[in-house]
Amino acid sequence: MGKVLVLNGPNLNRLGKREPEIYGKETLADIVKRLESIAKDDNISLDSKQSNHEGVLIDWIHDAEGTYDGIIFNPGAYTHTSIALRDAISSISIPVIEVHLSNVHKRETFRHQSMLAPVCAGQIVGLGSKGYELALQYFINHIIRKSGE
Amino acid sequence: MGKVLVLNGPNLNRLGKREPEIYGKETLADIVKRLESIAKDDNISLDSKQSNHEGVLIDWIHDAEGTYDGIIFNPGAYTHTSIALRDAISSISIPVIEVHLSNVHKRETFRHQSMLAPVCAGQIVGLGSKGYELALQYFINHIIRKSGE
Amino acid sequence: MGKVLVLNGPNLNRLGKREPEIYGKETLADIVKRLESIAKDDNISLDSKQSNHEGVLIDWIHDAEGTYDGIIFNPGAYTHTSIALRDAISSISIPVIEVHLSNVHKRETFRHQSMLAPVCAGQIVGLGSKGYELALQYFINHIIRKSGE
Amino acid sequence: MGKVLVLNGPNLNRLGKREPEIYGKETLADIVKRLESIAKDDNISLDSKQSNHEGVLIDWIHDAEGTYDGIIFNPGAYTHTSIALRDAISSISIPVIEVHLSNVHKRETFRHQSMLAPVCAGQIVGLGSKGYELALQYFINHIIRKSGE
Amino acid sequence: MGKVLVLNGPNLNRLGKREPEIYGKETLADIVKRLESIAKDDNISLDSKQSNHEGVLIDWIHDAEGTYDGIIFNPGAYTHTSIALRDAISSISIPVIEVHLSNVHKRETFRHQSMLAPVCAGQIVGLGSKGYELALQYFINHIIRKSGE
Amino acid sequence: MGKVLVLNGPNLNRLGKREPEIYGKETLADIVKRLESIAKDDNISLDSKQSNHEGVLIDWIHDAEGTYDGIIFNPGAYTHTSIALRDAISSISIPVIEVHLSNVHKRETFRHQSMLAPVCAGQIVGLGSKGYELALQYFINHIIRKSGE
Amino acid sequence: MGKVLVLNGPNLNRLGKREPEIYGKETLADIVKRLESIAKDDNISLDSKQSNHEGVLIDWIHDAEGTYDGIIFNPGAYTHTSIALRDAISSISIPVIEVHLSNVHKRETFRHQSMLAPVCAGQIVGLGSKGYELALQYFINHIIRKSGE
Amino acid sequence: MGKVLVLNGPNLNRLGKREPEIYGKETLADIVKRLESIAKDDNISLDSKQSNHEGVLIDWIHDAEGTYDGIIFNPGAYTHTSIALRDAISSISIPVIEVHLSNVHKRETFRHQSMLAPVCAGQIVGLGSKGYELALQYFINHIIRKSGE
Amino acid sequence: MGKVLVLNGPNLNRLGKREPEIYGKETLADIVKRLESIAKDDNISLDSKQSNHEGVLIDWIHDAEGTYDGIIFNPGAYTHTSIALRDAISSISIPVIEVHLSNVHKRETFRHQSMLAPVCAGQIVGLGSKGYELALQYFINHIIRKSGE
Amino acid sequence: MGKVLVLNGPNLNRLGKREPEIYGKETLADIVKRLESIAKDDNISLDSKQSNHEGVLIDWIHDAEGTYDGIIFNPGAYTHTSIALRDAISSISIPVIEVHLSNVHKRETFRHQSMLAPVCAGQIVGLGSKGYELALQYFINHIIRKSGE
Amino acid sequence: MGKVLVLNGPNLNRLGKREPEIYGKETLADIVKRLESIAKDDNISLDSKQSNHEGVLIDWIHDAEGTYDGIIFNPGAYTHTSIALRDAISSISIPVIEVHLSNVHKRETFRHQSMLAPVCAGQIVGLGSKGYELALQYFINHIIRKSGE
Amino acid sequence: MGKVLVLNGPNLNRLGKREPEIYGKETLADIVKRLESIAKDDNISLDSKQSNHEGVLIDWIHDAEGTYDGIIFNPGAYTHTSIALRDAISSISIPVIEVHLSNVHKRETFRHQSMLAPVCAGQIVGLGSKGYELALQYFINHIIRKSGE
Repeated sequence: MGKVLVLNGPNLNRLGKREPEIYGKETLADIVKRLESIAKDDNISLDSKQSNHEGVLIDWIHDAEGTYDGIIFNPGAYTHTSIALRDAISSISIPVIEVHLSNVHKRETFRHQSMLAPVCAGQIVGLGSKGYELALQYFINHIIRKSGE
Repeated sequence: MGKVLVLNGPNLNRLGKREPEIYGKETLADIVKRLESIAKDDNISLDSKQSNHEGVLIDWIHDAEGTYDGIIFNPGAYTHTSIALRDAISSISIPVIEVHLSNVHKRETFRHQSMLAPVCAGQIVGLGSKGYELALQYFINHIIRKSGE
Repeated sequence: MGKVLVLNGPNLNRLGKREPEIYGKETLADIVKRLESIAKDDNISLDSKQSNHEGVLIDWIHDAEGTYDGIIFNPGAYTHTSIALRDAISSISIPVIEVHLSNVHKRETFRHQSMLAPVCAGQIVGLGSKGYELALQYFINHIIRKSGE
Repeated sequence: MGKVLVLNGPNLNRLGKREPEIYGKETLADIVKRLESIAKDDNISLDSKQSNHEGVLIDWIHDAEGTYDGIIFNPGAYTHTSIALRDAISSISIPVIEVHLSNVHKRETFRHQSMLAPVCAGQIVGLGSKGYELALQYFINHIIRKSGE
Repeated sequence: MGKVLVLNGPNLNRLGKREPEIYGKETLADIVKRLESIAKDDNISLDSKQSNHEGVLIDWIHDAEGTYDGIIFNPGAYTHTSIALRDAISSISIPVIEVHLSNVHKRETFRHQSMLAPVCAGQIVGLGSKGYELALQYFINHIIRKSGE
Repeated sequence: MGKVLVLNGPNLNRLGKREPEIYGKETLADIVKRLESIAKDDNISLDSKQSNHEGVLIDWIHDAEGTYDGIIFNPGAYTHTSIALRDAISSISIPVIEVHLSNVHKRETFRHQSMLAPVCAGQIVGLGSKGYELALQYFINHIIRKSGE
Repeated sequence: MGKVLVLNGPNLNRLGKREPEIYGKETLADIVKRLESIAKDDNISLDSKQSNHEGVLIDWIHDAEGTYDGIIFNPGAYTHTSIALRDAISSISIPVIEVHLSNVHKRETFRHQSMLAPVCAGQIVGLGSKGYELALQYFINHIIRKSGE
Repeated sequence: MGKVLVLNGPNLNRLGKREPEIYGKETLADIVKRLESIAKDDNISLDSKQSNHEGVLIDWIHDAEGTYDGIIFNPGAYTHTSIALRDAISSISIPVIEVHLSNVHKRETFRHQSMLAPVCAGQIVGLGSKGYELALQYFINHIIRKSGE
Repeated sequence: MGKVLVLNGPNLNRLGKREPEIYGKETLADIVKRLESIAKDDNISLDSKQSNHEGVLIDWIHDAEGTYDGIIFNPGAYTHTSIALRDAISSISIPVIEVHLSNVHKRETFRHQSMLAPVCAGQIVGLGSKGYELALQYFINHIIRKSGE
Repeated sequence: MGKVLVLNGPNLNRLGKREPEIYGKETLADIVKRLESIAKDDNISLDSKQSNHEGVLIDWIHDAEGTYDGIIFNPGAYTHTSIALRDAISSISIPVIEVHLSNVHKRETFRHQSMLAPVCAGQIVGLGSKGYELALQYFINHIIRKSGE
Repeated sequence: MGKVLVLNGPNLNRLGKREPEIYGKETLADIVKRLESIAKDDNISLDSKQSNHEGVLIDWIHDAEGTYDGIIFNPGAYTHTSIALRDAISSISIPVIEVHLSNVHKRETFRHQSMLAPVCAGQIVGLGSKGYELALQYFINHIIRKSGE
Repeated sequence: MGKVLVLNGPNLNRLGKREPEIYGKETLADIVKRLESIAKDDNISLDSKQSNHEGVLIDWIHDAEGTYDGIIFNPGAYTHTSIALRDAISSISIPVIEVHLSNVHKRETFRHQSMLAPVCAGQIVGLGSKGYELALQYFINHIIRKSGE
């Protein structure tokens, strides 16, 4: 049985309340509930955490090693500025998929660059909360089941 | 019953033969076969085309309107240079998902920028040929079935 | 009797269907019909061609030499990226006027620069389909009639 | 009966005397005379003003509102530096066409950018004094007659 | 017996007619004739192709693998813009020498950068049509004869 | 009765001790005392918080919604780097005024850009601790009293 | 008794008429009237001037020395381009506060940089016509009264 | 007998009063008096003008043609921003020497570039008011006497 | 007797586990043990702290004033992004030496710039864990003993 | 009988010893010996010099005029930085061919730009020591024989 | 009696022979002869040196301290690249005037920037060999006589 | 017994005389004397050389191979410009430590970048002449003794 961590960065606790024309009306709890239901169907364990603190996110990434098979990570605004999170991801060996709800390439120029993308396994961008689901599906089908074979 | 177009740009006909340390050993035919099998399971029709010609790709995008429910598009090197392809995508109303096999953000700087991303529905990057499957899954579950409800 | 070529680049076949809030509702056929009527009144011969293929546009520019007195050219997105089209224009001796329907200077930064403008006779920008008519008027009054005197 | 303002910026009073290899031998008076003759044929009133003073040009643009149907504006060197003229044009509701005698895109890099183009109706560049005539023709046919219908 | 492909990109069909002060008066046919005579002396087979179409050039590069021992490639304007041609060259295993007739470093800034140089075996620039001959000599002496030993 | 939050970012706890030639000799406590006295005179409630932690500041901004009528925010060094704080401000609906003690435009180049200014109601810069008072006066007179009318 | 100069740069005479969605519906006369009333209450003398001419603004700044205790200056578009105004402010010893009605940081990139800010006492941005009032309050409370003590 | 114009741009009327640590204590009148005395010794006529208005400076440069043998021009802050003054100098045929009192290369970056230098005969920088004298000496010895021989 | 603080920033707790090809196999505990042994030999007190939280590091730097004679600081990834840490160092009066294990100048471009270096006493880069020892030696010999004389 | 100078810049004396994975195992003496043998066969005189001193290289280039028919120059690292060498080449009338052993376009960005290329006759890059031979062949066939005819 | 050093950098030994359309037909010896004659008239001692070696120029600048009252320095191409020469000038206390024969601002962009100007007393540019004479006149009248009074 | 070379670049012979507010009052001889005393205590041989000539420094670096165990190198101004010195260091196999007396990161922007750092073992910056001592200590303890074990 595999284990996946869903990690959300700054301001994602405001989902549903924050700029709904960009991020939609779903709350983070709604999204996690759907992910948990998918995970359950596949007999996978799923944890979800959110923090506005860069340092806390770094701590959690360090702690994920040895516990999880993969991390679905929406780093929010830290995507574009945090070399420290990049180094945290480099310092662990489990795969991380970077997910963004909105199409960041349609927005301000400073959102076009990801400091984290080069050290992640991949990126899913602009597909709303479905992006998390696709990432979870990827971990289940291609990482967990494969290593479990 | 929905219909999806899988469109591949320059040099993707060389897949399997071309730089396997970057792109893997699968051929484009292998990938399409797996996508067709998924599509078939979901009772979806899937067409696959590849061209090295920017103009041909533009023509096909124009023609897709009215025939397909969505396009899975790996624009290869044109991703980074083609405003004409961007305008072609803007000129149609069906959604396009941009897919890249390799993690372009790990490679040369000129591969970090996508001229197309701002006009696509979303981007799936770095997950190998699984990226096509996730895009197909997205179209089946969230575009075709939804509109078919 | 003079002869003018009206050349249109990528996506202009989508005119009327494509982003009408930017490009208006007229089709390319509508515009050409009006140009032909003006040309006829002035006893001028007018040909019109459109292609989404950069290479085809280059071929046509080469072939224009010796046949036409001038080219009215809307290069679409190739305006901003094609050094090859620039070299094609440099390689012929007849004058080319670059025409844009929309005010490209109001749009994305990458549309502000024209690779072709430095080798064209002039530019008419932002006056909609009237821009083609002004360019035709210029060729009739100042190039064809003058050389015909 | 319509009314058009022909506005010329710094150093255009030197036309004919100034760098004739770039700007030709015609004086500003020659150009205006031809424009007046065209205007007269079309029963249009035409005023012509020139100043080397940015502030005077701004004052005249403000005053044009309510008096003229359009402005044909060759802003000379202020094209590339004046945000104040840009704001002046934004502050009025009548259309302005930016005209340049020479092909500015063939010259020094700092002449390639126009601060005014994004707030003008359009631009006619590089067609010599004929550019003014095309702009006048545009105002007569498409702005004045149309609104006069 | 070895085999070399001489590949010429956009506008090189205009050689002799196009800007002779930059490119000289020789036609492409003149150059190829001299190359064929050299090849014949060395008992080498030589094919020559030219296209203005980026896509066609990509197709020909793909097809060269397995047929030729090396490619002498003058990519014309695509040198500076085509990542797709770069990827095509990367996707084959035979060596490519990039040749330019004129000294591109003396010309406009955008001609100073080659997108292809990093994936070619080498570059010969500014030595006119003699550059092709030197490239051919290199292939004959150091690639074909060596591998033929 | 209205309520205003005075929020201070990193290193502002060092005020009075830190580089007095730039920031003056007043402590943060001195400033807050004066603000409280002004607030009291106007029957306004005022809270003051300071943190060196970006995440804590984000948490407090989230919590301010529904409790305060406005935030006077001196983000210190995070002004120039924090997209996360920018998103936090965007995610709430109450107005924020950005205040800087020193004239940041006189100092190092990296202090000239504010990531937060575009999402704040306004900016008061370089007027020392009086800047806080003016911001408070603005909230009292134009936000609180107005909405209280 | 103190004396304050309110100086307004190009296009501010169009206030109320010009782009009301950005600048509001108040005229400059409305704003000055309110400032005069505040000044009168505090027994302060207030003069107000506006010009579209950079040179006139420079002349007035020179003349202000020895007459006024401070200048409230909205330099309009000259904010972003005028080194001459910057030098004029540097050449006098009385304090200048730069005021902008709109939040310039939300607008075009070229409006984000102020050539004048580094030589002004401070900046108040984005608080509409209240910005002038806060600047006046600052001069009354902290410059005039202080020096009058 | 020759004739020289000494032209001074914005803020130079403040000389002696303005930032004496940069520009020294001499007034413009002091400098002109010394220049007149040198001119008189050499039987040369010398006129001196100063304006803060870009447009006035342009007018004077136009008027200088046919009257003066050369212009000694300290364009002050317009040095770095005025393409209009550059074009004015280009539009006349008499030589202009650009003079700066201070060493502009020691100061802010934006003072390092001169828009005028490329169209002036030469530049004398950083030698205080002696720079004017050297320029005058140059005109007397190498322009006026030479043409007077 | 002197006192030195050894401060380590984000991800340095992963030392030994994290990318050993870059950072070596020693753990942070190993390094600190060796530093303590050196300190003990010299009768110096040494404290060691590590945090992944920017805010915590700022707090500790503030608290160091009055307790320590110097700080040996490896700021990890915050080196390149944190103006807040820079301001924290500026706000205290004890010397800080910036230490990096790896040669940051050999790595990604964004690691070449240090926001902190300009406010530190010095930098020791690329000498592995020996860099900490050299910094300690510097503090013992040149700061503590000197002030203790 | 013609005469050719082979000039080598800094660090080329280390050839064979220096980074053989980039520059190969041949020493400079080996290369020169082969060139001398080719020259001898063609009855050409060949001199070879190497210096690590920019000034010495400049002196030798000056002295080459009048003695040699051409220079084969590998400027090493001075390629990318030396305007003085560029001016030296400009100051003589005999042709210079720039040769690089390695494909500089595959290496660090600062090696992509040549300060010398615009004043050389041509460039041969990336073909190892064969590049010298091709340059010599070019001088023998197209410069010396031609002028000797 | 004063003493002045005339120092000339790389390629100035080629004067008269080198690009006479830029630098004129005078040789360096001609210029120095005229300077010596002026110096003699004023009872000043003048030495002249030229080197193509950056290091030699640095040595001479060091040695000038204590021997000369000033240096007239034409640094040639080192003007634009040599921080070492800049530091050499900073390390001595006698004034240096930078002289350029041609108007460097009319030429290639890389000639517009002087690394030395910020540490020189002043710059005389574009006045041909007369620039040396003006610099000498400046030293005689304003440095030597003044200090000799 | 080990051997270390202390190499100093341009202007370091001026130490003590040159800008003492930046570089201190010690002469280079003073520093070397102290280093020799340390070396002697550790039974190490130490040579010291200084040159203002880039070429001489390159020659010495080449010659160091096989003679010394390490080089302590203060490249002075060549740090920021010399690719040739970088290549010289790359061409030898003994370690080089780059030392700077002043904190170059506090000074002009062009001193922030080191062309040499990426090919050196490490950098010690801003610790005055103690930096040399730390580098020597490093070589003695970690290079010489280690290899001597």
